[in-house]
Parts: sequence; C-alpha cells; structure tokens
Amino acid sequence: MTSRSALIAAVAATLLALPAHADGPYRNPDNKSVYDASEGTYPVPYKKPTVAEITAALNRIRGYMDATTPTRVVHKDSGVQISDFSKPAADAIVEPSSAEWGIQIYEMGIVHAGLIKAAAATGDRKFTAMTARHFQFMADKLPYFTAQEQQFHLQRNNSFARVLEPRSLDDAGSMCAAMIRAHFANVGPDMRPFIDVCSNWVYKKQFRLPDGTLARQRPQAVSLWADDMYMGVPALAEMGHLTGQQEYFDDAVKNVLQLTQYLFNPQLGLYTHGWSSNNPDAPRFYWARANGWAVLTMSDLLDVLPNTHPGYPKVLAQLRLALRGIAEQQSGTGLWHQMIDRHDSYLETSASAMFTYVIAHAINEGWISAATYGSIAQAGWVGLNTRINARGQVEGTCVGTTLASDHIYYYNRPTSVDALHGYGPTLLAGAEMIRLLNNPQIDIQVRLRTYHYVPKDAGATNYSHE
Amino acid sequence: MTSRSALIAAVAATLLALPAHADGPYRNPDNKSVYDASEGTYPVPYKKPTVAEITAALNRIRGYMDATTPTRVVHKDSGVQISDFSKPAADAIVEPSSAEWGIQIYEMGIVHAGLIKAAAATGDRKFTAMTARHFQFMADKLPYFTAQEQQFHLQRNNSFARVLEPRSLDDAGSMCAAMIRAHFANVGPDMRPFIDVCSNWVYKKQFRLPDGTLARQRPQAVSLWADDMYMGVPALAEMGHLTGQQEYFDDAVKNVLQLTQYLFNPQLGLYTHGWSSNNPDAPRFYWARANGWAVLTMSDLLDVLPNTHPGYPKVLAQLRLALRGIAEQQSGTGLWHQMIDRHDSYLETSASAMFTYVIAHAINEGWISAATYGSIAQAGWVGLNTRINARGQVEGTCVGTTLASDHIYYYNRPTSVDALHGYGPTLLAGAEMIRLLNNPQIDIQVRLRTYHYVPKDAGATNYSHE
Amino acid sequence: MTSRSALIAAVAATLLALPAHADGPYRNPDNKSVYDASEGTYPVPYKKPTVAEITAALNRIRGYMDATTPTRVVHKDSGVQISDFSKPAADAIVEPSSAEWGIQIYEMGIVHAGLIKAAAATGDRKFTAMTARHFQFMADKLPYFTAQEQQFHLQRNNSFARVLEPRSLDDAGSMCAAMIRAHFANVGPDMRPFIDVCSNWVYKKQFRLPDGTLARQRPQAVSLWADDMYMGVPALAEMGHLTGQQEYFDDAVKNVLQLTQYLFNPQLGLYTHGWSSNNPDAPRFYWARANGWAVLTMSDLLDVLPNTHPGYPKVLAQLRLALRGIAEQQSGTGLWHQMIDRHDSYLETSASAMFTYVIAHAINEGWISAATYGSIAQAGWVGLNTRINARGQVEGTCVGTTLASDHIYYYNRPTSVDALHGYGPTLLAGAEMIRLLNNPQIDIQVRLRTYHYVPKDAGATNYSHE
Repeated sequence: MTSRSALIAAVAATLLALPAHADGPYRNPDNKSVYDASEGTYPVPYKKPTVAEITAALNRIRGYMDATTPTRVVHKDSGVQISDFSKPAADAIVEPSSAEWGIQIYEMGIVHAGLIKAAAATGDRKFTAMTARHFQFMADKLPYFTAQEQQFHLQRNNSFARVLEPRSLDDAGSMCAAMIRAHFANVGPDMRPFIDVCSNWVYKKQFRLPDGTLARQRPQAVSLWADDMYMGVPALAEMGHLTGQQEYFDDAVKNVLQLTQYLFNPQLGLYTHGWSSNNPDAPRFYWARANGWAVLTMSDLLDVLPNTHPGYPKVLAQLRLALRGIAEQQSGTGLWHQMIDRHDSYLETSASAMFTYVIAHAINEGWISAATYGSIAQAGWVGLNTRINARGQVEGTCVGTTLASDHIYYYNRPTSVDALHGYGPTLLAGAEMIRLLNNPQIDIQVRLRTYHYVPKDAGATNYSHE
Repeated sequence: MTSRSALIAAVAATLLALPAHADGPYRNPDNKSVYDASEGTYPVPYKKPTVAEITAALNRIRGYMDATTPTRVVHKDSGVQISDFSKPAADAIVEPSSAEWGIQIYEMGIVHAGLIKAAAATGDRKFTAMTARHFQFMADKLPYFTAQEQQFHLQRNNSFARVLEPRSLDDAGSMCAAMIRAHFANVGPDMRPFIDVCSNWVYKKQFRLPDGTLARQRPQAVSLWADDMYMGVPALAEMGHLTGQQEYFDDAVKNVLQLTQYLFNPQLGLYTHGWSSNNPDAPRFYWARANGWAVLTMSDLLDVLPNTHPGYPKVLAQLRLALRGIAEQQSGTGLWHQMIDRHDSYLETSASAMFTYVIAHAINEGWISAATYGSIAQAGWVGLNTRINARGQVEGTCVGTTLASDHIYYYNRPTSVDALHGYGPTLLAGAEMIRLLNNPQIDIQVRLRTYHYVPKDAGATNYSHE
Repeated sequence: MTSRSALIAAVAATLLALPAHADGPYRNPDNKSVYDASEGTYPVPYKKPTVAEITAALNRIRGYMDATTPTRVVHKDSGVQISDFSKPAADAIVEPSSAEWGIQIYEMGIVHAGLIKAAAATGDRKFTAMTARHFQFMADKLPYFTAQEQQFHLQRNNSFARVLEPRSLDDAGSMCAAMIRAHFANVGPDMRPFIDVCSNWVYKKQFRLPDGTLARQRPQAVSLWADDMYMGVPALAEMGHLTGQQEYFDDAVKNVLQLTQYLFNPQLGLYTHGWSSNNPDAPRFYWARANGWAVLTMSDLLDVLPNTHPGYPKVLAQLRLALRGIAEQQSGTGLWHQMIDRHDSYLETSASAMFTYVIAHAINEGWISAATYGSIAQAGWVGLNTRINARGQVEGTCVGTTLASDHIYYYNRPTSVDALHGYGPTLLAGAEMIRLLNNPQIDIQVRLRTYHYVPKDAGATNYSHE
C-alpha cells in the first residue's frame, strides 16, 4: 500500500475509537485545585453531571426530533399536502422525515418511552407533546389509510402498513408497548385499536420455536435474535399491565428466560446477537446493541411484572448477571464498544445509552446497588453527552444491523445521526440520570478526584486519616 | 523520547495492524445501491468472492513459486550447473531459491498439499506440475546425493540431508504426508523410498513422552509443540491411508488427543504454543499459527481416518471446539492476529490462511454447518486476498518462530514474503473456497448488505415482511 | 471535532501505549548476524540484560533518591534550617522533598526493601546508606516531634504524625515491615519504638471485617482494598519473623487467603482492586498495581513464613495461580497495562516492576520454575529499563489512586516521575534480576533469537538437528 493511504487509514481507525465531540483533553472541573499533580486529564469531560445540564440536553434532542417528524399526509411524488380526507388517494403517504424516520417504526417506540420518562423526571409535560401529536395523527388518519388499503392494496407501500397488517415483531412490539405506556401516562388519544392489532401479532401470530420462544425465519430458517427480546417482551409485559391477564406476563418471562438460555454466555456475562438451529454451537458475536436490547427488555419487564410472579426473581437475577458483565466492558471514555468485548471496535452510542439507562434505572428501583454502579452510570452519561450535538442530534449510533455472521460486517457498520436507535435510549438515559442525581437515598461523594455513590442507609464512611 | 521518533513508532505500530494491501476504504460492490446510507465502507474489499478471482489468485501464487524453486544441481560457490552425475562433487548442492526455499522443507509439504487441492478444485492439472517437477527431481537425484554423503559425510550440509537422514519431525512428517497425497493424486514418480525413511522417523524414531506423545528436547529438555501435531500426525494418518494398517491411525489419533490434553485451553477454545515438563502450569502463549497447525492437523486426519475408527468422533468433536474458539477471534478485516487473542498484535497471514482453509473444508465435508461458518470462511478469504500481491507473493506471514516464552518475542516476529509458511495454506484456502462457492448444498444469500450461507436442506428462509 | 484536534488526540492515545524512552525500533544485539531475515526489530531493546547494566541503573535511581530526600528540619514558611532541638518550634517540619516524597510514607517502605535487596544482590552497602540515613534521622528526631505534638497538637500537620499516631494501614504497615527488614540486615539504628507503634496499629487497631479481614471505611462504609494486602500483611509477617510469635503469621496468612477469597477472580487469574459489602457482586476493575500489591505481599510473606506453617502451601499455591494469570497479560513491550487485562490502557511502570520482581524472586526461591518464567522476568526488566531515565528517575508510574468505580478514572490516571510507587519496586526488580542472572541453577540459553531459562537439574536440551 502507499504509505499515505496507510497513514490515513491508520488515523481513521484510531479516530473511530474516540467520542464524536472530543475537544479535550479535559480537566475535571470538580477538582478546584488547578495544579493538583494527582489530577490528570480526560478524553471526555469527566465530572458530576447536573440536572440542569441533562435537562438542557434532553430538550435539544426533543426539539430536533419534533422538528424532524412531520405528521402530515402528502402526495408521494409532488409532496403537496393533502387536506381532503373524504376519500383516499392512491399516492397518499405520511410526509417523509428529513432523517427518514417513520413515525410507526420500532425505534420510535423507544423514543416515546424516553419522552414519557423525561416528562416524569423533569415534571415538564413538554416532553410528551410529540408523543401526543404522533399518536393523535395516527388515530385520526387510521380510517383514511385503512380505506386506502382496501381500495388500492398497496401492501408495504401503505404508510400505515405496519399497523394495518403487521408482519414481524419489528412492526408490532415496540410501538405496542409505547402506546400502552402513553395510556398509563395519560398522553395522547385512545390507541386501543392499534394496541389490539399489534399485541395480537406478538402474542398469537409471530413465528416461534416449538417451545414458544419468539423466532424468525431469517437469516437461517429458524433463527433467534437478541433484538426480539425487546421487539416482543415489553409488549407482552405491558399487555399484562393493561389487562391484568397473567398469561401475558408468563409469556414475557418465558421468553426472557428461554432467549437467555440460548444467547447468554455466563462465562463472559454477555449476550451473543443471535442463534440458529442450523448451527446451535456457532461462533458468537457480542454485538453491543444486542446486549442493550436484552437488559432494556428485562428492565422494562421488571417495571410492570408483579414481584409476586414466580418469574420475578429469575428475571432480576439474570438482569444482575448481565449488568455485571456489561459494566465490566465499559471503555475509558464511559462509552461501550460496538462489539462489546472487542476494545478495538468503535465506541457506539445506542448501546451505551441503553446500558446507562438500565444501570441508572436499576439503581433507582433498588434492583442493584448504587455502590459501584452509580459511578458507572455517571461515566456512561459523561460519554453519552459527548454524542449529543448542539442541534440535538445524537451522533455515533450504528445504523440498522441484521443478524450477521462475520466481524468484517459488524466492525464496519456505519454510524449516522439519522440512526433513530440512539435517540430513544439517550432520552431514557438522561431522564434516569436526573432521577439518580435526585435520588434521596444516595449520597454522591466527590472524594479524591472521583465519585462514590454511597447508599445512605449503608453505614458511614470515614476519611479521618487524611 | 523525541516526539518525532514517538510519532513514527506510533504510526508504525498502527500500520502493523492493517492488511498489506489496504488501499481502501472499500465499498461493497455487491450492494448496487450506491447511496445506501446503511452501507458503510470497509478496510478490506468486503464482497462475495468469485471462482474466477480466486483461481486467478491461485495461479499467480503458483507461477511465482514455480519460478522461485529451481530444481538444478550446482557447485556451491560458483553456482555453475552440474550435468555430470556419474560421480558426486563435494560442493554439489541443490540450486538455492532466491526466496531461500528448500524444496524438501516442511513448509513445502503444505505447498504440495495446496497445489493438489487446487488442481482438484479447478480441474486444472497445471497446479500440480510443480509438485511433479520437484518430486521427479528428488527421485532422480537421490542416488547422486546418497553417493555424495557416503563419500564426503557432509551431514546437514548435504542438500538431501533431511531425506537421507531425518533428525526431527520438521525434517520428516510434512513432506512424508505430501508424497503420499501425490501418490493418491497420481502426481509425480514413485516416492516410496522417501516415504519409508520419513515415516519411519515419525513413527519409530522421534523423541516422545513415555505416553507416546510426540515431543522435543528443546527449548526445555522435555517439550511439546503444537506445531508437532502437523509435523507428525498427517504423516501417520497418510501412512494409515497408504498401508491400511490400523496402528498408524491409532498413533495419529492418540497424538491429537494427547497434545490437545496438554495444550488446549477449553475456556478460551484455543491452543497454547507449547508445554514443558519443567513447568507444567506455565503461562500460555496463544500464537495464531500454533492454532493453525492444530486445526489443519485434525482436518487432515479426518480426511483419511475411517469414520468407523473409535477416535473419529473424538477428533471431530475437538476440531469443532477449536474452530469455534478460533472463529470468535477473527478480526474486523477477516484476518486473525499473530497472538490470536491479543487484538493489539499484528494481523498474520499463514494462520489466517489455515483457519480459512479448515473452516471452508469442514463445511464442505459436512463436519460443521455452513450457517455462520460460511460467512466466516468468506471473510477470511476477503482478508487473505489482500495479502496476495500482483507478483503472486503472499505477504504478511510471520517467519519461522521457535517455541518461546515471552510476548516481546512473539509480538515482534517479522513478516516476510519469503516466509514459505504462508504459501501452502493460502493455496489450500483458495482451493477450498472454490469448492465452497461451488457447493451445491449451500445457498449463499446476499441479504441486507451481508452474506448468509444457508444449507439448502435446512428449511426455507422468509423475508416477506420487507 | 476538528480534524487537527482529532489527530492530536489519536496520536496522543497511541503514544500512551508506548514506553517512555522508546527510541527504537531496536535490533537485538545478542544476534550477531546483522542481515538475519528471521530477526526483526523491537519497540524496546530486547536482549539479555547484564549485571553491570542493571547495577548501573540501580545506582542511578539510588543517587537520584538520595539527593531528593533531605533529612533536615526546617521552619515551614522560611525554609530556614533548625539546629536547636532543645525545645520544639510550632512550625518545624521535615524539609520537603522536591519530589514531594515524605520519608515516612508507605511507598518509602518499599524503597527501603529495594535498597536492602540491592545491597544484598550487589554486595555494595552503598545501597543501604540512604536507609540508614533516613532511619537515623527518624530515631534522632522522634523526641523532638513528640514534644512538638505534646505542645502544639498539630495532628496530621506534624511531620512525624504517621509514626506518632498512625490512623490507617497506609501510615503503618509498609514502614513497619521495612524497619524490621533493616534490623535483620543490620542497617540503621534500633527502630523498636517505631515498630511497636506501627505494628500495634496493624495488628490491633485497624478496622476489620468481623472475620478479621483488614478493611477500610471508604469509599463505602465497609470496603476491602487489594492494596491492604501489602499495607498489612508484610508488617504482620515481619513481626512474626521478629518475635517468633505464631499469631502474627496466622493473621498474615488469614488475611492473604481471605482477601483472595473476596478479590481474586480464578477464571482470569487476576485480582480486582476492591470490594464493598454494599455491592458484593459489583463489576470488577483489574487495576494492575492492585495485582502488584497482591503478589508482592504473598512473596514477602513466603520470605519469612516457616514452611511448616499450615498456611504455607496455600499461600504458595495462590501465588502461583496469580503469577500465571498476570504473566499471561504481559504486553509485547515486556511491560503491563494500567488495567492489566485491557490492552488499550497505558503501560504502567510500578505494577510492571512488582511483577518483574516477584516473578524473578519466585524463580530464585524455587517457588516457580525458571522455565518460561525466566524469559517473562527478563522481558519485564527489558521493558522496565526503558522507564529509568538518565537522571535516575523512574517514569510512567501511575500516581496515587483511590479505590474507584469507573474506567474513565482508572484509564486516565496520570503518570509522574514523582510517583514514588515506581521506585521501590524497580529497585526490587533490578536486584532480583541480578540474582536471577547469577543464579547457578539456571542455564540461560540464547537460542534461535530468543531466551530460554533452563533449569540445570532438569535434563539436557538437544539442538543436534540443526
């Protein structure tokens, strides 16, 4: 190779490992002793975040997303807005987002979850305004796109295809859970017609293993995806929450435990991305976002699963195992790597956000201790915050990624500010960090140039020797 | 240090981790959608290889090797060719190769194995012409160098020393196996006199542990080398193949299983380079090529071991364990690292080639599933192909490496286009990839920007949701 | 970020991974064949060290430390020397070191241990002159600072605070062990008054778990630190040595085994930095120096523990397990990484020195085999030697580091030539390497471009095939 191209490649490879906004090195401003020889510099702004800073970051994201998700109907080619909904036009579509964000795709379900938690954490209902707007639009326009489908049979080209006729867990589960959460949060209109369709897909119609495990017929004929923990279980859990029917909780718990049986490596404490019956002992790929889906799912399930359910302690124990494994892989920037155990792969935002959220949430819910985990959550936010730019875009997120079988693919997936997967988890992470900073049971001690989250009920610390 | 020398060192260190011909970044040409935001770039040309491209690469290697391995006898100092073989000259030697490749060294045995498989995969007998030429020369000149030895007692300085009087497994096993393979492939003359000598060394004369495990008296007085799986077992296996005598197969199986007992770490799924009785619990060094020897050996053994042999399922099970461990270590370029589990060590060609060959071969033989492993083999070839230059040289191969005891040594072994260890395995890998691409039982699906090797008899996949 | 700042950050990150004095690449001068194609270059000067070179390096360190540790009493603000010790001055302090090295801090205890071993290894009493000077000063000035305290109650501001009234293991254990070693080495005055105070703290007054494990009340209310193996156990062991009282040995052994129970991960063969009862299953941080404290402690204990003590074989077995795990993590420069299992963290001197010392010492004492471990110790010294600069400063040592809970902190701890933690271990390592090179039971063979430490009583090696 030419030495020039090699140099460029080398520097590029190194850059991938750095956070997007690293203008550092940074000095920790919590250490007021400017000439402290025991204080170094950091590649990210290592400090205790404040509620005000996090709230501002969440507002930037919210503003950007609100502006980037139109809820209008237009003619497909001309882009001209449609205002006559008395009879359907064949080329009517929901106006595209400049970021190519569908308002009914699974990633948007997590955005709504994040907005609802952000509203709760900040007390500011402005966060759920977008959720209300999207859902109101969906409710209003359902008859219109239903009529369009009956008349023109557009199949996947109908903008409401996912909710009219779901064909996969991706179509159904995440938005289903989001709509039920909005119901409990008193946000938006009655979405029960949508909830019925999508929950029916998840509970009754999705392809499964004979033992009931949610599965797919791709890329191998019988494949399991860690992603499907999230694409299926929160919808089932929220249906249990909504209806009080035990069978939904049973199915949710069963799927968490069975997918764990297939996908979790207890030696590493990590989940592999997937599994197929064609190769049950295949080499494993510890994709970070797959681990994100797994722990986010368990956390969401525990949020609504009655603690009297026989599966509750099993799910909690598994969540703890996975969080330990994941936490130990955190990088020196607070972010996690695309392949979570491969520290020469790039630092990825969406998984880092999921981990930060779940760790902070698990502390706040009392599932794990604030000791050690509080600092890890804080470090996660410090890293994540470098990925939220001034416009409110979330940078550094791996784009949509299929269940693959080689590291060339996984290591080199591009990142994009348009990858919606990063937005919902970052909103969740910020909201939960606000709760953590406000948590009255935790004393956050800034001692000896680092941070100690000390449970207030767990005895006094003593620095009298200094 | 000076900042300039530091910068050079830093960049040099980074470059070592890149493939030799990286002129990338590359876009995947199998994705015809040029502006696909979900398609990134790659440090290697990620694509489905074609039979034509692989065949061309194999031909380049073959041509380079053919031109670089003279089979003439010359006077040592003058270089003048000898044509009178009626009585020996004291200074007669086989004309040296510009790459310092002896035609009887163990690395050349693997080259012959590769050429024989390449001829079979392509149907082109041109590939075995070099094997025929080398072996014909050896058969023709054996009487001459025998006479030279009787008259002048040159010991190791006799060009035919290895075949006249083998002193180590390196001298005997690999060429022994190659000559028997040539016999079965109907390539070259009758080599039975050579086969008798070398097989006798392996089977009867090599130093062993009391339990029969092939061993060496260096670097410690009683040492085991993973390399000796290959230096011994294929010869034993091929002798079983040739003679039908069960005792050869028994010895081959015993050595695979016993060396595995000493050298394989089941927690990692990897082989350490060696072991000594002076330090049975010593720290381990997971040198990639040592793992290559181990799996190549098991693969070669299974090629000829009757599947009714009681050791067959044990060897197969162990091969599967090792391939899983190895596959999980593949880098984001498709190549593997010099220290296979140390991703800050350089990417090494010979081991990568052995792994690519054995994985592809194991799929084609039905020992492992095409699912997952097919993509891994393909990625291996994509990486390897960057190491075959326009002249047909194979770049990036670690030179001859002894059983050592520190990482400074292993991390910093030089690579060279003259390191013959890379040539045979690359020929094997290419030949087997041709078989894989032509394998009628596998449907290679190009889906969602990556590759899925789907066994045709294992149920239909379904992408109807898209 | 700007591409310029990114480039700087990238290069800086890479530089952190290189040894401080890398002016390489280096060619191995033990290979006299300058054009040997099988000999590459190294990022550190890979070669067999000589006793003369090591002795010179130790003398440079000794000289620098001697000049940098004044033993005078001065007025705090004016710096004017005090010569009238008939009655105390309120502002009298021990004259500060330009490197901010207190002569009674725990790091200095290891320096004395290193000087005593260096004197023994070289036969040169010059090495212990500084120890004698420091201890004589302490003995002479104890009445003066005792009087100062009685009159002015300066508490921690009294220069002799640690020995007048220890408050932590850091205050007491390391210096206690050093003073007893000096006693046995016949260096300096009678330090029994100091020994009584500090051993009493360790044995009787330090906070412990109910099971007797040495503990701290920070950063969580009940915390264990791997550091406290060293801060406690050698003092207990040396008290057993000094007094012959079994109870001290029992306590020492108990603490090694119990701290190991809490902190050692047998799967990795590594120690985590700490543990707290608030989060017993917390994520683990494999800080290199924590592992250094652990193995240095076991080595120091075995130096004086009667081999008839029931704990002896248990401590020895645990030391062997830990050394294997640690040795396997050695980098390609001979040094070890700040986070020992994270090869993208920087190369750290103090831990590398501790490992090099303990491995070499364990060989010399017959606790582990010279085979394999001898080369590892040598590689450790090769790396360490790049960290000793021309002035005798030891570079690249992580400064004082608390028990923390996130990788941003650990990865980014600064290094400093003033970090005293690197000096004692480097003296120990050099002294022990001299013993290893002089060890009459080991044949150090330079073969095939690398180094083999062959036990002389373990059978002959054989290279006759070459």
